[in-house]
Amino acid sequence: MKIALAQLNYHIGNFECNLHKMLRAVEEAQNRSADLICFGELAVCGYPPRDFLEFDDFIRRCQESIHALCQASQRIGIIVGAPTRNPVIEGKDLYNSAYFLYGGKIIGVQHKALLPTYDIFDEYRYFEPAREFRPVEFKGYKVALTICEDIWNVGNDNPLYTVCPLDEMTPYRPDFIVNLSASPFHAEHAQERLRVIRANVERYGIPMFYVNHVGAQTDLIFDGGSVVMSPNGRVFEEMPYFKECLRVYELEEVLRGERQNEQPKEKIVLIHDALILGIRDYFRKLGFQKAILGLSGGIDSAVTCTLAVEALGADNVHGLLMPGPFSSDHSLRDARQLAENLGITYHIMPISKIYDAFLETLHPLFCNLPFDITEENIQARIRGTLLMAVSNKLGYILLNTSNKSEMAVGYGTLYGDMCGGLSVLGDVYKTQVYALAHYLNTQPIGRYNRYGVIPENTIQKPPSAELRPDQKDTDSLPEYEELDRVLFHYIEGRKGPRELVQMGFDEALVARVLRLINVNEFKREQAPPVLRVSAKSFGLGRRMPIVGKYLS
Amino acid sequence: MKIALAQLNYHIGNFECNLHKMLRAVEEAQNRSADLICFGELAVCGYPPRDFLEFDDFIRRCQESIHALCQASQRIGIIVGAPTRNPVIEGKDLYNSAYFLYGGKIIGVQHKALLPTYDIFDEYRYFEPAREFRPVEFKGYKVALTICEDIWNVGNDNPLYTVCPLDEMTPYRPDFIVNLSASPFHAEHAQERLRVIRANVERYGIPMFYVNHVGAQTDLIFDGGSVVMSPNGRVFEEMPYFKECLRVYELEEVLRGERQNEQPKEKIVLIHDALILGIRDYFRKLGFQKAILGLSGGIDSAVTCTLAVEALGADNVHGLLMPGPFSSDHSLRDARQLAENLGITYHIMPISKIYDAFLETLHPLFCNLPFDITEENIQARIRGTLLMAVSNKLGYILLNTSNKSEMAVGYGTLYGDMCGGLSVLGDVYKTQVYALAHYLNTQPIGRYNRYGVIPENTIQKPPSAELRPDQKDTDSLPEYEELDRVLFHYIEGRKGPRELVQMGFDEALVARVLRLINVNEFKREQAPPVLRVSAKSFGLGRRMPIVGKYLS
Repeated sequence: MKIALAQLNYHIGNFECNLHKMLRAVEEAQNRSADLICFGELAVCGYPPRDFLEFDDFIRRCQESIHALCQASQRIGIIVGAPTRNPVIEGKDLYNSAYFLYGGKIIGVQHKALLPTYDIFDEYRYFEPAREFRPVEFKGYKVALTICEDIWNVGNDNPLYTVCPLDEMTPYRPDFIVNLSASPFHAEHAQERLRVIRANVERYGIPMFYVNHVGAQTDLIFDGGSVVMSPNGRVFEEMPYFKECLRVYELEEVLRGERQNEQPKEKIVLIHDALILGIRDYFRKLGFQKAILGLSGGIDSAVTCTLAVEALGADNVHGLLMPGPFSSDHSLRDARQLAENLGITYHIMPISKIYDAFLETLHPLFCNLPFDITEENIQARIRGTLLMAVSNKLGYILLNTSNKSEMAVGYGTLYGDMCGGLSVLGDVYKTQVYALAHYLNTQPIGRYNRYGVIPENTIQKPPSAELRPDQKDTDSLPEYEELDRVLFHYIEGRKGPRELVQMGFDEALVARVLRLINVNEFKREQAPPVLRVSAKSFGLGRRMPIVGKYLS
Repeated sequence: MKIALAQLNYHIGNFECNLHKMLRAVEEAQNRSADLICFGELAVCGYPPRDFLEFDDFIRRCQESIHALCQASQRIGIIVGAPTRNPVIEGKDLYNSAYFLYGGKIIGVQHKALLPTYDIFDEYRYFEPAREFRPVEFKGYKVALTICEDIWNVGNDNPLYTVCPLDEMTPYRPDFIVNLSASPFHAEHAQERLRVIRANVERYGIPMFYVNHVGAQTDLIFDGGSVVMSPNGRVFEEMPYFKECLRVYELEEVLRGERQNEQPKEKIVLIHDALILGIRDYFRKLGFQKAILGLSGGIDSAVTCTLAVEALGADNVHGLLMPGPFSSDHSLRDARQLAENLGITYHIMPISKIYDAFLETLHPLFCNLPFDITEENIQARIRGTLLMAVSNKLGYILLNTSNKSEMAVGYGTLYGDMCGGLSVLGDVYKTQVYALAHYLNTQPIGRYNRYGVIPENTIQKPPSAELRPDQKDTDSLPEYEELDRVLFHYIEGRKGPRELVQMGFDEALVARVLRLINVNEFKREQAPPVLRVSAKSFGLGRRMPIVGKYLS
């Protein structure tokens, strides 16, 4: 029995493209004598389809793809995810299902039972949970079909769920497990995934073929890393991260479990690779080639630009250097050095004339009111408008350069440096941005495959927005080392003020940081989508009231 | 038995304020000899608390409020909503509960069973559904406690749910039903609510005391309209819409059912009143007094401004008139006329100098590329930046003036006219904006209580963004009458392209409009929160992929 896993990059709602990819994979698997090929969760429509699932037309098109795959299943078994109408009136309208197709027919359908409804997941919004569980018979084997979360309640140890689908199938004595996943990346996730797969394999004593999506859907990055695990708990194979891949496995070999083939999981490398894929897919799936961004000479724009060059190529990244009245000499020098190291085109566009025109226009109303955050924001918004102008005129997408630390505490100008189609670093804390910079400088990057593209001075100098004379980030914020620790425990860890103080953080610092986070919810509401690389990112996975009064 | 309903305006996470309000209401109810007082769903913390529910500290503070209310229940029964920890490890961490307090003790707790998880609701993200149902005994009566959605499955006719809490309580023969709600407004909702309450009352033959929240929480507006219904299905009382209110009812009188006291429900009046409350609470709950907005002479800004004056007072609204190179004479004249009719302050701030400075700065890059949408957007973004500058300098909140039709098809400039802290008309179709204008002109409004504040020319002239010579909205969009019908059936009705064509809409028009809606998801992602007045508003209630390829 030869089983093919197709780790593919789907595109939400792009039925033709998804189907075409799958049909090609079916053909290749057949050429390589596979008996069975497995695709991902909701593969026909891509994941997550969100409220498109409420449209009859969308579901009809999903079913058309199943029909087409059915036609292609004459001589090969196909397991593929798609939504199914719930025929019963009671309950949600849909199931999230795994279809088993063979001989031109649907030979089995298993619905998903465990419907994640937390963080970025909203599955209970759309789907009814499965209540029946039965392996599908295929060429003398009993195949236990599961979908993503279904394997995350091993022996009912997950407090969120009361059903364990594989326990329900045990009486039928399945021969192996197939899991169709759409499991989004975060930096610790590949590790957890192997732990959970191993727990299942060891409990049931049968191998698992776990196939994941790869590719980014706006904010969510699917990392691939599909897994074949032998009954002895060894990783027979972990498929590559962040790449499409089709591989064929001989069941007998997997059963023997003599191979161990796991990939390294270095956190900063994974984050780096995830961001590259996130940028690349955002552009490709929207049909754009070129990016523009502002280069300030600072670390955030330098790292964003370098990642963009890796993702899109030096020809496709354009830098705008927009010195203002309070820019230091080194900011222009460092930004120019970066652009030259990377071999990208750049333009220098001083903002002073526009800035003066704003001050003059506003003078009748402001008269002699003192310089304050208003004038700082005007500078940032002029830059935002210039960047958007180039974006509009030349059809480039503006990349946002804000990091997670500043997005958290609102240290950024709405409609200014918070502009952009995609936030590359919005889930990367400032301290991690430095780690990324160091890592990037060990790699050959850009037009000249140069090492050390990010200028040393960009890394060394104290961070500053340069929107008033001699400004430093630390004028208004704690040191990033300390800030990031508080942010992490509050955002990722959901620790409250008392718990943070008990952990040893200074009480005044905690109150100040938590207040900043909460009063700036209105800004994040209007931020671009953020590439998610942590277990708790800003965006749909973190839903906070704007008009609230708690820790604010 | 005297029962008080307290229809209050809570503030999310503002525990002191919510508790203080409730304690004052308890005192008043006692002074009026009430035996029992009922507050709303999750009243202690406000609704919806969203992911604050994931913080232990937040739940602890909710429980502190319950404790304080318990102390106040020595001589009066108190029914109040709060989250409860689920003591069992399995399932979600919390219940959404109604507490019955009396004699300084908790004499009953009923959890919510039907957890809405659709549109703006995410209750299954946080809560475990109730599985036990039992009325609470109080002074010889059996009180059936229900929470909001619990009564929306009368006789199991709602396909979403399989349990009907009141059916489960029937064997205990309850004497009356109390329902604690947090039921957000949309223009048809008050009607539906009465229908559902009546269906319950008639099925069980006992009266219902339905108490709703009032007040806005950012985008969601709670309209009050609490209901007392007699067993014969008559509306014994519908409490006022959009106002806090405490009333005491004699159970015997309600049982007799000789009164019928329903309020008028004229759609455009309800929308109007909802928007006023939405604006007012946004400012009050954030601690701001003053609004600024751009006045273009067009209908959207005129209606927004007029609503703001009603909500905040003429002293608290400031208009900015920002004529540009393509502004017509009438735009300035109409805008000035509006401001003078309302008696608000305004400033005229021409954008030409800034616009020229932008063109000059961009010239080295753009050279002689032709005028296009870029230059249109620059004008809109200059206005956005000027408005934000005044907002920053003077501490005013910028009101956004985009309507639902243009937000739908992306006819607006991101970071330009899409700026603002709150979108007032983002759930009001353009044709409804006209209806609002006509209604507003029948009311005495502003500093001089003048009728007809919106200039006739603003209502009569063809809509235009005036960003290029002789521009009209209809240059790039269908007529609003037709556009709005397609939008309504697609957005509210979730009709797909085939169904729309079957309904008689032109195929090319449908394809074009649906495409515009879908390719502009990225803009709406960064739009301000929208006051929700329809059953399907932009925002958290409508979750769409950005990078998708469906109808786009």
